[in-house]
Amino acid sequence: MKLLGIDIGGTNTKIGIVEDGKILKKTALKTNMIQGYDNFLDRLTKEVDTLTKGIDYAGVGVGCPGIIDTKNGVVAYANNLYFKNVPLASDISKRLHGKKVSISNDANTQALGEVKYGAGKGFSDVIMITLGTGVGAGIVVDGKLFEGYKGMGCEGGHTVIVVDGEPCSCGRNGCFEAYSSASALKRDTLKEMINDRQSLLWDIVKNDLNEVDGGTIFRGMEKGDKTSEKLFRNYVKYLSEGITNFVNVFRPQAVILGGGMAKEGDTLTNAVQEQVDEKRYGGKDSLPCKIFTPILGNDAAIIGAAELNN
Amino acid sequence: MKLLGIDIGGTNTKIGIVEDGKILKKTALKTNMIQGYDNFLDRLTKEVDTLTKGIDYAGVGVGCPGIIDTKNGVVAYANNLYFKNVPLASDISKRLHGKKVSISNDANTQALGEVKYGAGKGFSDVIMITLGTGVGAGIVVDGKLFEGYKGMGCEGGHTVIVVDGEPCSCGRNGCFEAYSSASALKRDTLKEMINDRQSLLWDIVKNDLNEVDGGTIFRGMEKGDKTSEKLFRNYVKYLSEGITNFVNVFRPQAVILGGGMAKEGDTLTNAVQEQVDEKRYGGKDSLPCKIFTPILGNDAAIIGAAELNN
Repeated sequence: MKLLGIDIGGTNTKIGIVEDGKILKKTALKTNMIQGYDNFLDRLTKEVDTLTKGIDYAGVGVGCPGIIDTKNGVVAYANNLYFKNVPLASDISKRLHGKKVSISNDANTQALGEVKYGAGKGFSDVIMITLGTGVGAGIVVDGKLFEGYKGMGCEGGHTVIVVDGEPCSCGRNGCFEAYSSASALKRDTLKEMINDRQSLLWDIVKNDLNEVDGGTIFRGMEKGDKTSEKLFRNYVKYLSEGITNFVNVFRPQAVILGGGMAKEGDTLTNAVQEQVDEKRYGGKDSLPCKIFTPILGNDAAIIGAAELNN
Repeated sequence: MKLLGIDIGGTNTKIGIVEDGKILKKTALKTNMIQGYDNFLDRLTKEVDTLTKGIDYAGVGVGCPGIIDTKNGVVAYANNLYFKNVPLASDISKRLHGKKVSISNDANTQALGEVKYGAGKGFSDVIMITLGTGVGAGIVVDGKLFEGYKGMGCEGGHTVIVVDGEPCSCGRNGCFEAYSSASALKRDTLKEMINDRQSLLWDIVKNDLNEVDGGTIFRGMEKGDKTSEKLFRNYVKYLSEGITNFVNVFRPQAVILGGGMAKEGDTLTNAVQEQVDEKRYGGKDSLPCKIFTPILGNDAAIIGAAELNN
């Protein structure tokens, strides 16, 4: 059965025709929501119609950032998209010839794709933590997305791990996101560099602070830079505390670390694995919980969105 | 249908015959696990046989502290009871004439009782946070206990809210429990009293530090004691941060504050309500989440244990 998966991001929107967890054809457009919601829907519909020409598909799944009322197909709130109570599912359905449209949070669709067809294949209980501009948590319990009351999604990045800590975009202080996102690591890297003009990190970014991102310290560690190692240990510490919180509540068989930080692979997962094993309730007497990076890449969100209708 | 509910605590074990969420008859015994597990089972069986003489009951539900493998009826780990991989359900079943025995974490059974027949009646998604010696979280999602993978329970008290914070019994630092339990408040009260020999709190406990407990500052506030008010604001702050973390993940319709601290009623719940409303993701645009205290008292855990078989 062919299904359509749509992954709406703040910058790009990706569309794919999916069958048995594989993308047969895909395309993308700039989200550019600042040009208006109707304009976005017009451009989206045009792309879908071109992509699916001559291909019959059974339903449409959409991953979207923000708080989603999945039962009613409404985006309650998504600041990056300027959405407040937008009936996205019915609006897309109207333009796509009345097809059934299901929506969910994009961290959830990515987790669902990765769990069912990627790094989590074979497990029933998996949490995917996306470490990018923000931190998202997609939680799969007994093979199904866990989405909270009324499917309002799980704002896992907005759980405080340091009361009165670093300010977070959500208005609280000390959120998991404010320590574990790629943006948080970038913030801490910049701070250290400004304090330490001798750091090798300045060479790595060719003295251009605009070049600093969440991966910079990993390049520094490859060159034996001490500042980078210190920043890495600190980042892993807070990240592991946040992950262990979820492990103690959901007791997943695996945690998948996605988002931009995932490209650091084993360097990141091995360090996190060690700390989570030490910190989780019951320690090594408890059920194992493996830390992985994704294997489907950006496709996971498209595949997972399609999977919403499977 | 009559059901048997057993609530095993570190100090006392309570037993009740339950029908339609009401306790028809009840009894209790000292847990005294230090005398040995078989000794406990002998005394438990005797109490049950006396209580149920001439009364037919369909099944037995047991609430027990620790990590429980509910699917297999095994207590994986319960430090207060010296339990490690104890097949409690089958051991009790053998002694109770082969009756069906289900077990679950005691925070869960208490939540289930309170949600179905107490303060949470009418709601489908409720979290009960017990604030006693430790902090437990019983989570009801869509009318059912949420118990994590393999029913290993949710160690909600052991989620860090202050990285590198106060030491916790679980080995981590900065757990929710280390700030929000009655024991934590007692610790902070003692610390303040020792720093402030003029505090009214000394009068309240008649200069006996052994009399200090989680309720002491509430008696102090009734007399206008400034130290008590400061301790209260601090306690509510950390408690609300921890609760908001759960609210952002599970989006419950209500949070019930149980355990020893619940007797402080509106003074506690009103202050927590205000902070949770301010801190939770989406703020007042989000679905309401009411903060209550329980209404069933100690009976909730017995009723909820019985409810495991309903």
